[in-house]
Amino acid sequence: MKPVVLDCDPGHDDAFAILLAAAHPAIRLLAISTVAGNQTLAKTTLNARRVCTLAGITDVPIVSGQARPLVGPVELAADVHGESGLDGPNFGPPSVPVTSTDGVGYLRELLRGSPEPVTVVAVGPLTNIAALLLSTPDVGRHIAEIVIMGGSTERGNSTPYAEFNIYADPEAAAVVFGSGLPVVMCGLNVTHQALAGAKVRRRIAEVGGPLAGACLELLDFFGDTYQRLWGFPAPPVHDPVAVARVIDPGIVGCVPSRVDVELAGTHTRGATSVDLHRRTGLEPNALVATELDADRFWELMVDAIAVLTERGRAA
Amino acid sequence: MKPVVLDCDPGHDDAFAILLAAAHPAIRLLAISTVAGNQTLAKTTLNARRVCTLAGITDVPIVSGQARPLVGPVELAADVHGESGLDGPNFGPPSVPVTSTDGVGYLRELLRGSPEPVTVVAVGPLTNIAALLLSTPDVGRHIAEIVIMGGSTERGNSTPYAEFNIYADPEAAAVVFGSGLPVVMCGLNVTHQALAGAKVRRRIAEVGGPLAGACLELLDFFGDTYQRLWGFPAPPVHDPVAVARVIDPGIVGCVPSRVDVELAGTHTRGATSVDLHRRTGLEPNALVATELDADRFWELMVDAIAVLTERGRAA
Amino acid sequence: MKPVVLDCDPGHDDAFAILLAAAHPAIRLLAISTVAGNQTLAKTTLNARRVCTLAGITDVPIVSGQARPLVGPVELAADVHGESGLDGPNFGPPSVPVTSTDGVGYLRELLRGSPEPVTVVAVGPLTNIAALLLSTPDVGRHIAEIVIMGGSTERGNSTPYAEFNIYADPEAAAVVFGSGLPVVMCGLNVTHQALAGAKVRRRIAEVGGPLAGACLELLDFFGDTYQRLWGFPAPPVHDPVAVARVIDPGIVGCVPSRVDVELAGTHTRGATSVDLHRRTGLEPNALVATELDADRFWELMVDAIAVLTERGRAA
Amino acid sequence: MKPVVLDCDPGHDDAFAILLAAAHPAIRLLAISTVAGNQTLAKTTLNARRVCTLAGITDVPIVSGQARPLVGPVELAADVHGESGLDGPNFGPPSVPVTSTDGVGYLRELLRGSPEPVTVVAVGPLTNIAALLLSTPDVGRHIAEIVIMGGSTERGNSTPYAEFNIYADPEAAAVVFGSGLPVVMCGLNVTHQALAGAKVRRRIAEVGGPLAGACLELLDFFGDTYQRLWGFPAPPVHDPVAVARVIDPGIVGCVPSRVDVELAGTHTRGATSVDLHRRTGLEPNALVATELDADRFWELMVDAIAVLTERGRAA
Repeated sequence: MKPVVLDCDPGHDDAFAILLAAAHPAIRLLAISTVAGNQTLAKTTLNARRVCTLAGITDVPIVSGQARPLVGPVELAADVHGESGLDGPNFGPPSVPVTSTDGVGYLRELLRGSPEPVTVVAVGPLTNIAALLLSTPDVGRHIAEIVIMGGSTERGNSTPYAEFNIYADPEAAAVVFGSGLPVVMCGLNVTHQALAGAKVRRRIAEVGGPLAGACLELLDFFGDTYQRLWGFPAPPVHDPVAVARVIDPGIVGCVPSRVDVELAGTHTRGATSVDLHRRTGLEPNALVATELDADRFWELMVDAIAVLTERGRAA
Repeated sequence: MKPVVLDCDPGHDDAFAILLAAAHPAIRLLAISTVAGNQTLAKTTLNARRVCTLAGITDVPIVSGQARPLVGPVELAADVHGESGLDGPNFGPPSVPVTSTDGVGYLRELLRGSPEPVTVVAVGPLTNIAALLLSTPDVGRHIAEIVIMGGSTERGNSTPYAEFNIYADPEAAAVVFGSGLPVVMCGLNVTHQALAGAKVRRRIAEVGGPLAGACLELLDFFGDTYQRLWGFPAPPVHDPVAVARVIDPGIVGCVPSRVDVELAGTHTRGATSVDLHRRTGLEPNALVATELDADRFWELMVDAIAVLTERGRAA
Repeated sequence: MKPVVLDCDPGHDDAFAILLAAAHPAIRLLAISTVAGNQTLAKTTLNARRVCTLAGITDVPIVSGQARPLVGPVELAADVHGESGLDGPNFGPPSVPVTSTDGVGYLRELLRGSPEPVTVVAVGPLTNIAALLLSTPDVGRHIAEIVIMGGSTERGNSTPYAEFNIYADPEAAAVVFGSGLPVVMCGLNVTHQALAGAKVRRRIAEVGGPLAGACLELLDFFGDTYQRLWGFPAPPVHDPVAVARVIDPGIVGCVPSRVDVELAGTHTRGATSVDLHRRTGLEPNALVATELDADRFWELMVDAIAVLTERGRAA
Repeated sequence: MKPVVLDCDPGHDDAFAILLAAAHPAIRLLAISTVAGNQTLAKTTLNARRVCTLAGITDVPIVSGQARPLVGPVELAADVHGESGLDGPNFGPPSVPVTSTDGVGYLRELLRGSPEPVTVVAVGPLTNIAALLLSTPDVGRHIAEIVIMGGSTERGNSTPYAEFNIYADPEAAAVVFGSGLPVVMCGLNVTHQALAGAKVRRRIAEVGGPLAGACLELLDFFGDTYQRLWGFPAPPVHDPVAVARVIDPGIVGCVPSRVDVELAGTHTRGATSVDLHRRTGLEPNALVATELDADRFWELMVDAIAVLTERGRAA
């Protein structure tokens, strides 16, 4: 069992990442930390609690972190995730609490106290992770790997070349890619293959119960968004791809590459310049995902919903 | 017959653009202007003369233009096109002359004197065209359309996001896209579909004669380059795609889009930010090619080689 | 007598530059070209005609050039020069005509036809001059020197570090400083010493007549602006400093220095980075004015108003 | 007595800042933290220990912080401060220890534990302070004011417009200026008035003893540097100006202003764009020093050397 912390900004696809990380036996989920991104910190934190309440995830501390990026202005994605950041289902009041509002401090102590290095899965803007790395010199020693959902080897979504998680805090991303730690980048080029089409939805429906129902409602809203904004036939569920990589690296094929985050562009700020063809002469600083086994990915994901539903029925 | 000027920096694929523009009956080729790009101005000009000599194109004035970009340093592509800019075949001494070394001035007077608006096909860095547009206020009135090979809606080639022709003179590209004139952009996203594979080469070989032979040698060299640098199975022949668009717009499907040239990025200077999904809120300023009918394209191209070969035999 | 063309965007201080260039016997003023800057091209051209009409300058062709910068958006200085670009005096309808609306083409032919190299004095945004240099390869051969009013070795005025003429077209400035031609930069660091204080105004008043009267009205308006925006006790009359440098280099002391124009900054676009202490390791590309003999400058300027007034009385 | 932490990168002028902060009765110096800047973190930390050892400052914890900037490459100032970072005097082995190598963590706990808000004086690159602010959400509550030596309202020193401390970590400076906390900026425009001329040196010499002797040797080396690189007649002693502002605000006159740190410029990265004339329309985010009472400053500084010398004799 790999010890993992999941840093997120729920967010529709973040919800699926929480479910997968909490349900799969290969992962021991130590904490869920939240960050401003898809919505404000207050909303993403509330949403993490909503998802955990709904899914019966009561034993994982939820801690809230940074409310704004290192340097630039706050960028939200209300056009993608709605006013609540998790529009679609009707969530009741959450019953799981926030364990700490000093999320970065909490992660710092958690990592320092861990007997083995911890895998950090970060599927929102990288503000918390950058702040964590900057806050103390020895923290990197306690990190096994940083697996992010973010960036792209091709086109972006916030702007033609920038993906939202990087666009929302490019300097934080630069800190992470420049950290010298092992970094795995799962970008839009692979997550756009994790489409929740009719077949996937059918399998989720077959699980039954309120969690599966809420998942379908999330996919409905997210699907409408992706249809409207980018003409997608089905919604790509980005964030759990990073979790899947941790569970089974074979699902997400990677190549070593240099990744530079554009901090200065007028039209390209937040783009990840991924040097797949070694044109820059710079050494690789990340493993960059280039292939997704979508079938196995969705198996994992549907299984996770089933496992949590089963647990809920047993409880 | 559309009156056309072809601005180029030969270059292997430029050679094919010259052949297509000179051979096809839909085009009346008024002039070939050269610019620094794939190689120095001296070399690209020599190469234009070599190609015209070899192909028996003796009635089209060749004029040389700008030797360096508007603002930045000179960027060449010797790694792609070799030291001569047209490595591969053995060209004898060229017999066609340079008509003017004031290429921009020549184009200016040519356009002003044209009874009908002229289509400008520009398949090198846009330095000449920008200088032309800046050099006199009325010149745009004489331009029907500017069709460029350059940029990309996806990845680049000089750097992860920048295509060479734009990268070599981003400010000139910004002048062209900001000119208010009709601009058509044929970028890597379509030209990477114009692959000269085994079947294409066979058809060229069937034409026979020295021109077809030289074309195959150009493709050999270019194919080696693309195999080595980018792992392509066959070389993409970029530049004649822009000529094909002029001959038959149906071959190159386009959508209106906003294109912004990145002038400021550290890692993305020269990228074309193509707003296909209308995320920027800015009005389209170009038609951007998104589809290529590769079969019809290669038909045109092989026919052109055949026509010129025939003419040569008749002469 | 040095042959000179004066490129300007009148503008209060431009008016004084026109008077000095037209009146002083060391200068043979071949043309006045106008450019968008302090106001739109239409207004700056009208203002050049107004000034020449008022001052009886009827033998110098006025030609209008570029209406917008090479690349960026149009930036005007209505807050400094008023809605007309020359607020203050009441000008009657101008009697001198516009000789050409293809200012760049006019200058090109004028320079090519000149038996001796011509000094270009440019006291507005450098759009016309950049377009001129780009429009034909041989034009530099006909230029003795380019003397500009623009930039600063210290603080700017449009923004903390950018002076208006450079800020309004940074790419054009980069073309000029990168041209390899002899460039003299008279920046705010010296022109802020050319203050039209009480003593200067008194001497202008002593000249008497309508031209001196209009000059005082221009200084009143300009003085109010500088008092209001920057807290100056008297208005700095920037542009004729560049003309004075041409008349008598001893008035404007210069040092050779590297000047780089910032094209990319978020807060500093248009700043002139002047490497006075050789920190960059780059070779000088300009003579940069660092000292002004304000007394001799004002002597020249008042004499010019007197000479033109005298001519007017004689006429 | 104001509780103060001094963050520094000794550095010749940093040494004087340490002396002043440790000696003056208005300040209770809680800690000295070190950062990479004038030299590597190892060297600046060693230098802080050397200065404290020499001056008999044995009761102030020295903690070492960040070894590199948040995002960009490490920039040192060996050309200004020599290979050791404190070239000139012969220091023996230091006897005061390093209390912590987790400087940011140490400051975090120190501030949290302080019964009253602490003044942070930061006279090196702002890496430690930015990391501190990012590392925990409540730390700002414990900060009375951040007084920095850094930036300029006019010219810089590392590059024409960038001062070294900001240039060495522009993103960290942006974090500090964007923090919403009270920030006082003492830039080159005032510190260049804190010249250690002949009279100042004479007064230091009159103090006598090894500390004064070492101070004079530091000034000799620093004076040679400033003579050689920038032609200064005497060395400006930048850093203690920020300490003097804390001791007696009347010595360093300030105006509220907007300060933006240039993160993106090609030639101006690290410049502080100080909007003294309210041209940007943005609200002030700092008090910017514009005046220095150099006589009173040097009185404080010489008194501090005398006080420490006296203490040393008494010990």
